[in-house]
Amino acid sequence: MPRPPVKRDFLSVESWDDAEVDELLALAARVKRGEVSGGLERRVAAMVFLDPSLRTRTSFEAAMHLHGGLAIPVEPGRGSWAMETEPDVVMDGATVEHLIEAARVLGRYADVLGLRAFPRGDDWAATRQDRVHADFARHCEKPVINLESARRHPCQELADGLTLREALPEPRGRRFVLSWSWHPKALPTAVPASAALAAARQGMEVVIAHPPGFELDPEDLATIEALARRRGGSLQVSRALEPALEGAEVVYVKSWGALSAFGRPEAEQALRAPYREWRGSAALLGRAPAAKVMHCLPVRRNVELDAAVLDGPQSIVIEQAENRLHAQRALLLRLLGAA
Amino acid sequence: MPRPPVKRDFLSVESWDDAEVDELLALAARVKRGEVSGGLERRVAAMVFLDPSLRTRTSFEAAMHLHGGLAIPVEPGRGSWAMETEPDVVMDGATVEHLIEAARVLGRYADVLGLRAFPRGDDWAATRQDRVHADFARHCEKPVINLESARRHPCQELADGLTLREALPEPRGRRFVLSWSWHPKALPTAVPASAALAAARQGMEVVIAHPPGFELDPEDLATIEALARRRGGSLQVSRALEPALEGAEVVYVKSWGALSAFGRPEAEQALRAPYREWRGSAALLGRAPAAKVMHCLPVRRNVELDAAVLDGPQSIVIEQAENRLHAQRALLLRLLGAA
Amino acid sequence: MPRPPVKRDFLSVESWDDAEVDELLALAARVKRGEVSGGLERRVAAMVFLDPSLRTRTSFEAAMHLHGGLAIPVEPGRGSWAMETEPDVVMDGATVEHLIEAARVLGRYADVLGLRAFPRGDDWAATRQDRVHADFARHCEKPVINLESARRHPCQELADGLTLREALPEPRGRRFVLSWSWHPKALPTAVPASAALAAARQGMEVVIAHPPGFELDPEDLATIEALARRRGGSLQVSRALEPALEGAEVVYVKSWGALSAFGRPEAEQALRAPYREWRGSAALLGRAPAAKVMHCLPVRRNVELDAAVLDGPQSIVIEQAENRLHAQRALLLRLLGAA
Repeated sequence: MPRPPVKRDFLSVESWDDAEVDELLALAARVKRGEVSGGLERRVAAMVFLDPSLRTRTSFEAAMHLHGGLAIPVEPGRGSWAMETEPDVVMDGATVEHLIEAARVLGRYADVLGLRAFPRGDDWAATRQDRVHADFARHCEKPVINLESARRHPCQELADGLTLREALPEPRGRRFVLSWSWHPKALPTAVPASAALAAARQGMEVVIAHPPGFELDPEDLATIEALARRRGGSLQVSRALEPALEGAEVVYVKSWGALSAFGRPEAEQALRAPYREWRGSAALLGRAPAAKVMHCLPVRRNVELDAAVLDGPQSIVIEQAENRLHAQRALLLRLLGAA
Repeated sequence: MPRPPVKRDFLSVESWDDAEVDELLALAARVKRGEVSGGLERRVAAMVFLDPSLRTRTSFEAAMHLHGGLAIPVEPGRGSWAMETEPDVVMDGATVEHLIEAARVLGRYADVLGLRAFPRGDDWAATRQDRVHADFARHCEKPVINLESARRHPCQELADGLTLREALPEPRGRRFVLSWSWHPKALPTAVPASAALAAARQGMEVVIAHPPGFELDPEDLATIEALARRRGGSLQVSRALEPALEGAEVVYVKSWGALSAFGRPEAEQALRAPYREWRGSAALLGRAPAAKVMHCLPVRRNVELDAAVLDGPQSIVIEQAENRLHAQRALLLRLLGAA
Repeated sequence: MPRPPVKRDFLSVESWDDAEVDELLALAARVKRGEVSGGLERRVAAMVFLDPSLRTRTSFEAAMHLHGGLAIPVEPGRGSWAMETEPDVVMDGATVEHLIEAARVLGRYADVLGLRAFPRGDDWAATRQDRVHADFARHCEKPVINLESARRHPCQELADGLTLREALPEPRGRRFVLSWSWHPKALPTAVPASAALAAARQGMEVVIAHPPGFELDPEDLATIEALARRRGGSLQVSRALEPALEGAEVVYVKSWGALSAFGRPEAEQALRAPYREWRGSAALLGRAPAAKVMHCLPVRRNVELDAAVLDGPQSIVIEQAENRLHAQRALLLRLLGAA
C-alpha cells in the first residue's frame, strides 16, 4: 500500500471511518499472530509525555523496535525543557519552550508523533476541547497519535476492542458493563469513555453503571450511543451496580471523577465519599462468575479490584495490556504507510 | 574512508581545519538530500546531559538510528548517579561518581560520547576554560562531542552554517546580524558565540548588536573576527539595534547574560532591566522584511521573538532546528570513520 | 542451541549449576573477542530500576543493541507510575501501580526483564529474603535478571569473574582480598557478597578484611566458603587489613554498612566512625605493589580509593566495568536461547 498522501492524525478512534477502524483491528489481530514483520526500518516515533506512563511508553518502544524502528520518549521538565501549552502567552515565566515549537521541531526529527496530556485546571468546558492535542497536531507536519487526552485514550480503545473480539466469539449483542469504582483520587474520564466506545463499536449491549453525580460528558454519551446503535448494540446508564451485572459477559472496572466537580478536589471527594464500597470486590464479581473482568491499568489493588479478582480466572487485564502492543503496531504500520 | 587512526574530539568547530569543516558541511548537505545511508550499524553513542535538552537529545537519538546505531542518553542525578566534576576532590559529600570514571567507563560501552554542561559558579575566568569538557575528553578513549559547554555549542554552529548556506545562495559578504534580546534569565554565551562563528565561517559581514555591558568574551570576539577575515568577511559590534538591521539578510535573535556580572543574578538583572524592549518584535523585524530570522530554540514566545515572527514567513527557525539532525549525522559518520 | 523450554531466571549466580556458569564465562570471553554477533534481533529487554544506575543501564542498552535488540529502561516514579512492592496491601496511598502488574505486563512486551531494588527498611531479617525480586520473577512469564538486590549483584559477579580470569593466568589458589572501606554512607552488602563469590568460584584464597562489626551475612559467608572449597580455594575473615594484604594478587576495595545496625543510620555511623582511615589509600596499596585493584564503581575518589590508585597502574576498575558489557551480552544470549 502506498504511503498516505496527506498526514493523518489519530486523536480519536471515531474520527476514522468505521471501515478503517475495522481494518485496523483486523491488522492488529494479524500482527499479533506474527503475520506482519518489518516495515518501520529507519523510522522514528517521538512521544511527548506531559504526564506519566508505563504501558504506553514501553509498548510504543517495543512496537517500533519489533518492526525495525525507534520510539523516542520525551518528558518535558524531566531532562528536557518545561513546556508551555497556552496559546498567545508572553513566556516570561517558568516555561522555557512552547509546545508549538516542539511539535514543529519533532515533526522534522520523527515520522510520527505522540502526545499525552491529562486534564488540567478547573474548567471542564475548556478542558473538554482537548485543545492541547489539537494545537500540537495542527502545528506538526507528521501524523500525531493521542497517547491520552482529557477526552480520549484511543490506543487503549483499540486494544480494548481487540480484547473484546478475543474474549467473545461474537461480541455483538452481548452485555458489557462499565462499572465505576471508588478510588482515592479523581481520575480522568478519557478511559471510561474510550472503553465504552470500544464496546459500542463491537455492537455490544453497553451498560454504564455509576453512582449519581458521576455521569460521563453528555456529548461522549451521545457518541457512545450513536456508535452502539450503528453497530447493532445499545447504551444504558444505571445507577445501581448489582442489577447491571446480571447477564454481563464483560465487566470493565474503572474509576473516574465527577465532572460536576471537575478541578475542585474537595468537592469531588465529598461526592465520592459515600461510595467507598462501589468497587470490583471479589464478592461482587463472584455474582457474575462467567464474566471476564477488564481494567486499563494501572490498578489500585484491593481498592478498585480485589487481588483475588486480579489474580483469578475472570481477569483478562494482562491480555488487555498486551493488546496495547499489537494495536499500536498496527496503528504505526498504517499511519506510516507500511501496511 | 578508513577509520581515523587517533581519536578525534569535537569540542569546538574551530579546533578542526577549515577544509575539514567545509567537507563536514558538504557531507551534511548530502546526508540531508538522502544520499548517505547506513554506516553506524551496531555503533553506540553515549550522551551525558548535566543540563536539560530537547533538540540535542532527540536529534542525536534519531541520527544514530537513521544510520543503524543507538544513542543512549545519560542524565546524572535523574536515574543515574549524581556526578562530581571538580578534580582532586575528596568525595565525601553528595556526589557519588566522578565524571572521570563516567568518561572512562562509557568510553568502553560506546563508540562516541557527548557531554552537555552549562556554565556554573560565579567566576567567568574559571568557567570560560571549559575544563569539565576538557577533562571528560582527556579521560575518554573515544571521540567526545561537545553538546554545549560554557563557551561553545558546536553542533548548533554546524547546523547554523548549513542553514545559512541554504538560506543564501552565496553567503559571503552578506550582512548577518546577531541581535541580543531581553530574556527573564541570564543565558549562556555559548550559542551567540557559535552563531557568530558560523556566519564568520561563511565569510559574512557579521554584526553583533547588543546593549552596553553585554559584550561577548574578548577572546571569542577575536576568534570570530579572525575567522571572518580569513573567510572574506568582517566583524562589527554595534550598541544600537535598528541601524544594525539595515541591509541585513539574516537576523539571528538570541539572548545572553552580561559576563561582567557572571554568576551574580541580581547585578546581572539590573544591567538587563533597561532593555526590556530590545527584542525580536514584529515591528522591529518588519523593518528588515527581506531578512530571514534565526533562533537556536528553545525560544520564549512574545519575549525574545513575537509569535507573529515565529509563525510568519521570515522565520527559518524550524529549518535551523531540522539541520541539527543532518549536521550531527554527518559529524557522527565522520567521527566514526563511516563517511 | 534451541530456546530454553522453561523460563530461566538469573537472580543469583549460585542458583545456576557450576558447569553452566563456567560456560557462561567462557561465552563472555568469546563475546569480548568479537566471536559472537547478532542473535537478539527484534528482541526486547525491559529493565525496571527502583534505584539509580549508570553502568547497569547503559551496558544493558549497549549489550542489546550490539546484538540487534533493544533494552527499555523503566524508572518508576520518574516518568512512570510510583510502584508498590508490598504484597496484599490496600493501595489507597501514594503508590499507583503494583510491581506484580508491572512484571506481568512487561513480560508481555519484552523477552527478558531486569529488576534493581536496593535494601529498604530497617529489618535485615526481612530484607535479606530479596522478596521483591522473588515476587517479580514469580509473576513474570519471561526470564528475570537481578540488576542488584539486597543480597546479590550477579551481573557484577559475572563481570568480576571474567576480570579475575583475565587478570591472572590461573586464579586458583591465588590470594584475593576483599577489603572493607570507610564511606560516608552505609552501603548495601550485595556487591561485597557477589565479589567474594566471584573469587570463590575461581578457587581463590579469599580473604575478607573488615573492622569488627562489619561481618557479612552469615549465610552469605557460608555460601562463599562452600563455593571456594568446592572450587579448590578457601575463605578467611580478617579484622586487620595490612596483614591480610600480604601476598595479595587482587585487592577488591568496597565499602558496606554494618548489618547489625541495618536501617539505623545513626547507630551504623557510630560503628563506622572509628575507621575513617580503613580505606584504599595509595600508601596502603603501595604495600602490595603487584596486586591488581578492583572496585565495582561508582567510587568515591580519595575516600574509598585514592585518585593515585584509580589513575595508576594497579587499577583494573575500568576493565572490570567494561566486562559488565560482555558478561551481560553472554547472559542475554544464553537466556534468550541465542547462544
